[in-house]
Amino acid sequence: MITRMSHLFVKTLRDDPADAEVPSHRWLVRAGYIRRVAPGIYSWLPLGLKVLHNVERIVREEMDAIGAQEVHFPALLPREPYEATGRWTEYGPNLFRLKDRKGADMLLGPTHEEMFTLMVKDLYSSYKDLPLSLYQIQTKYRDEARPRAGILRGREFVMKDSYSFDIDDAGLEASYQRHREAYIRIFDRLGLEYVIVKADAGAMGGSASEEFLAVADNGEDTFVRSPGGYAANVEAVTVPAPAAVPFDDAPAAHVEDTPDSPTIESLVALVNARFPRADRAWTGADTLKNVLFMLRHPDGRREPVAVGLPGDREVDVKRLETAVAPAEVEPFGDADFEASPGLVKGYIGPGALGEKASSGVRYLCDPRVVTGTRWITGADEPGRHVLDLVCGRDFTPDGVIDVAEVREGDPAPDGSGPLTLARGIEMGHIFQLGRKYADALGLQVLDQSGRLVTVTMGSYGVGVSRAVAAVAENTVDEKGLCWPRELAPFDVMVLATGKDVAVFDAAERLASDLDEAGIGVLFDDRKASPGVKFTDAELLGIPTTVVVGRGLADGLVEVRDRRSGMAESVPVADALAHLVRVVRG
Amino acid sequence: MITRMSHLFVKTLRDDPADAEVPSHRWLVRAGYIRRVAPGIYSWLPLGLKVLHNVERIVREEMDAIGAQEVHFPALLPREPYEATGRWTEYGPNLFRLKDRKGADMLLGPTHEEMFTLMVKDLYSSYKDLPLSLYQIQTKYRDEARPRAGILRGREFVMKDSYSFDIDDAGLEASYQRHREAYIRIFDRLGLEYVIVKADAGAMGGSASEEFLAVADNGEDTFVRSPGGYAANVEAVTVPAPAAVPFDDAPAAHVEDTPDSPTIESLVALVNARFPRADRAWTGADTLKNVLFMLRHPDGRREPVAVGLPGDREVDVKRLETAVAPAEVEPFGDADFEASPGLVKGYIGPGALGEKASSGVRYLCDPRVVTGTRWITGADEPGRHVLDLVCGRDFTPDGVIDVAEVREGDPAPDGSGPLTLARGIEMGHIFQLGRKYADALGLQVLDQSGRLVTVTMGSYGVGVSRAVAAVAENTVDEKGLCWPRELAPFDVMVLATGKDVAVFDAAERLASDLDEAGIGVLFDDRKASPGVKFTDAELLGIPTTVVVGRGLADGLVEVRDRRSGMAESVPVADALAHLVRVVRG
Repeated sequence: MITRMSHLFVKTLRDDPADAEVPSHRWLVRAGYIRRVAPGIYSWLPLGLKVLHNVERIVREEMDAIGAQEVHFPALLPREPYEATGRWTEYGPNLFRLKDRKGADMLLGPTHEEMFTLMVKDLYSSYKDLPLSLYQIQTKYRDEARPRAGILRGREFVMKDSYSFDIDDAGLEASYQRHREAYIRIFDRLGLEYVIVKADAGAMGGSASEEFLAVADNGEDTFVRSPGGYAANVEAVTVPAPAAVPFDDAPAAHVEDTPDSPTIESLVALVNARFPRADRAWTGADTLKNVLFMLRHPDGRREPVAVGLPGDREVDVKRLETAVAPAEVEPFGDADFEASPGLVKGYIGPGALGEKASSGVRYLCDPRVVTGTRWITGADEPGRHVLDLVCGRDFTPDGVIDVAEVREGDPAPDGSGPLTLARGIEMGHIFQLGRKYADALGLQVLDQSGRLVTVTMGSYGVGVSRAVAAVAENTVDEKGLCWPRELAPFDVMVLATGKDVAVFDAAERLASDLDEAGIGVLFDDRKASPGVKFTDAELLGIPTTVVVGRGLADGLVEVRDRRSGMAESVPVADALAHLVRVVRG
Repeated sequence: MITRMSHLFVKTLRDDPADAEVPSHRWLVRAGYIRRVAPGIYSWLPLGLKVLHNVERIVREEMDAIGAQEVHFPALLPREPYEATGRWTEYGPNLFRLKDRKGADMLLGPTHEEMFTLMVKDLYSSYKDLPLSLYQIQTKYRDEARPRAGILRGREFVMKDSYSFDIDDAGLEASYQRHREAYIRIFDRLGLEYVIVKADAGAMGGSASEEFLAVADNGEDTFVRSPGGYAANVEAVTVPAPAAVPFDDAPAAHVEDTPDSPTIESLVALVNARFPRADRAWTGADTLKNVLFMLRHPDGRREPVAVGLPGDREVDVKRLETAVAPAEVEPFGDADFEASPGLVKGYIGPGALGEKASSGVRYLCDPRVVTGTRWITGADEPGRHVLDLVCGRDFTPDGVIDVAEVREGDPAPDGSGPLTLARGIEMGHIFQLGRKYADALGLQVLDQSGRLVTVTMGSYGVGVSRAVAAVAENTVDEKGLCWPRELAPFDVMVLATGKDVAVFDAAERLASDLDEAGIGVLFDDRKASPGVKFTDAELLGIPTTVVVGRGLADGLVEVRDRRSGMAESVPVADALAHLVRVVRG
């Protein structure tokens, strides 16, 4: 069936929507693919839904190809399974919770580990039933604090989530690898430029875990790469701890007046002027900065924590959030300072920190703060700092926390050289969950010797609705959307210009022929100016446009490629065969 | 790709699930198609999901064929649009309500009239954009008081809902007819035995409206048919009001002692004995029974109401619920009687009822209670009744209410003879909504003369997940499920019996050949007894089974038809061609 522009439920916009933060959002709204209903909640118009269905088809085909079986769970779920694993609480305010008419607690599923675990427990009981991989393509819910960028980070979104069930670790590793390969095929077919990076398992509680990131300048995730091939989400980067330094010769710590040195820069200048060191100048990396945060635990408890790190680095809040999850990070405010008289704002030092110190504030330090390193840091008195404070001699942190910003040029953990940084959008995530959920929910099967063993699980996700935005983000240009062929809502747009009835008739015939050849065709049959039609054609991003216009008098139509912008004249008699070749490749 | 039973995520059950009320529920669970998660909330296992997808495909094809365009709205919706139409309140406890992390009121969409209206308002502004029909296949939520019968009446379910938008009534009528025809094609293809009946528009507030009911003995809906072709949901049946009766000659009303006559039957016996009438005996139809109910309005207000009807009929609570919607019906309890001293339980008469009477209880009467009819009814004193009480002379009801039970043999409203009754499952519902939503939400477009006119709408639903249960209900037998070919999860089941490797190899070859011919094949490759395999094959309900077994030695396989139970021997060399013919028809 030919779709006609005069009939298609779409209205293109000439102006950017007010709330559009990123190009994909801007163009998907302007081209009439999606429409906002509430913060982070969108409707799909006909064009957008076709692209979404194309993504679903690709994901479904590749999951089926590895023998994963499709099922479908409800989105509205009872509390009990999530209570059993602790996630009812751990999800904190990210979980949509509600009560039914009888007062029973329910939730809108953010992911379905619990439900799949219980389903397999319900149906299966023997090692002979394994390995098993199940998946669903389903609407999920997360009450994001900061929904953003249209469908890139929504509160209602479509995900493919799958789960593998194996009798032992080798089985899990094999299931994980099968999913990894399926994901490579999926993201290749989506036409995404992507990287596979080591990931932190975060709240999922797993061990081995990788992310598939679409490379995008305005992605929310930062990742690093090394010359040797190491690649990791910045939240998963582990900074190599230097070896301990001998400190027998280190001078004793001494407190000094350091007036007018509120910043690291001014402090470094002051100590270089007043307490110069012989071998080299002091730098920001010689100072120990102590930053306070307030953690809010899922049960509502607030806990202060101090992070000590070299003064030339900032705390990366996303790395911190990952490190302390499921707790959430809040600023340590003036009221918190007032409640902690031992902490002198701007001059906090190790002396006032630690579980055994007067403040009782837990004190965690960057991996670079090893035994024997000596530091310039706050003296816990206004206008004063302490110098030559030696870790392991003068203070001992309560633990290590690896949350300092990672910088371009930092040494890579694999020792292969400096790291480079880039940004991306998380499109897929594969986890070796292990036995956490199976343990919590009692999923055991009989092994070959008749013993009950706990099943080991993997969990694998693809952001299906997000993929629509990520591909758009990867492919848009200054004229609008520009779909790869496998995702495009239509293969060919047939565009009739002018008012000549013969032109419209020829265009209609060509559209019919294409349709009969099984090619998806959008026919712009509107009585609009060529300018409007060309602008809309570019905005909608259909890969190929055929213009039927004045050239028809000479027996020619024009075939345009949306991506390259190239146009060629084709005899109208050859147009069908030519387009079939273009579309089928 | 061949699906193998040894690999398929399914476990058939030999026993009925404890909570199964109807055959479709029992067999869908036993055959491993669906699984309960919470009351009215189910998961779909691979076999069930394939059937659901087949229903979706049929619905999608037929909606596309009438030019309806597919879109997709969120299930999680903001309160405001539903507030604007009053449905936030009217839905009462049937609506799942929740708050997001910022405290904003949200709901899980039960239907999407508001959202479609706002979307069209957002995009369109001219009569030239109309007519327009949009649809979605989407997960919906209703917090049913009595979820039942598995997926037949769930709290989370899949619906196709569509909406038409027209400039005038003639356009709406045409859109309505197009949908009606598409629905006929959909339900024909589903292989359902169904009827189209006049429906009450209920809470939707529309005018013309019809339901598509699957005929099923344990359906929740009762419908009537007349010899002349009238068909209606029992809730929509209108009882023809008889003409007024002259009452000049009627005797004066007189109150009599009627001891020991607590029931209509005993009362009729007593009056026939003590106050016989000359022309014929008194019957229950001469008595006027007054039944009290308490209405709970969506705003929580409780209002008593009295229904007066001939004593030989009961109030049909579903008809009453429909008549008073969006109010809900509750019993009039002992506490309510205590609070109303004028009402003498068992002896309530028109004297104590009515907005102007001492009780102030609104008094609504059956259409048969017309002016001039005379009644035996309660005298509002214990042990006493009044006789010859004439409507329009001795009492005047506050209004008419048509909620008495409809009986087999009642005269049809079309005058064509007696009604017959049957039961069914509501599968589809088509409404002429009119301008209710467009008015409430300001959906206007410019007409040909440049004037703003309000758009008129239709609303059309198909229960997609319910269709899976309804078709099962229509087709199951004592051995299990029995799918029509267009819905079956697989076309052919290949079943290898015995332990002979040659048999398994031949079965595998046949399965591969069928798969390559594009036929969906489920291969029972398990090392199980023939008995187990035959039982499962019948339980799963795949239309055709090929048994490869002992006959192979003679070059034969057996082809069985699930519905007829007929089996025929086919030479193995012809099996593929034979099965292709069977499947393709």
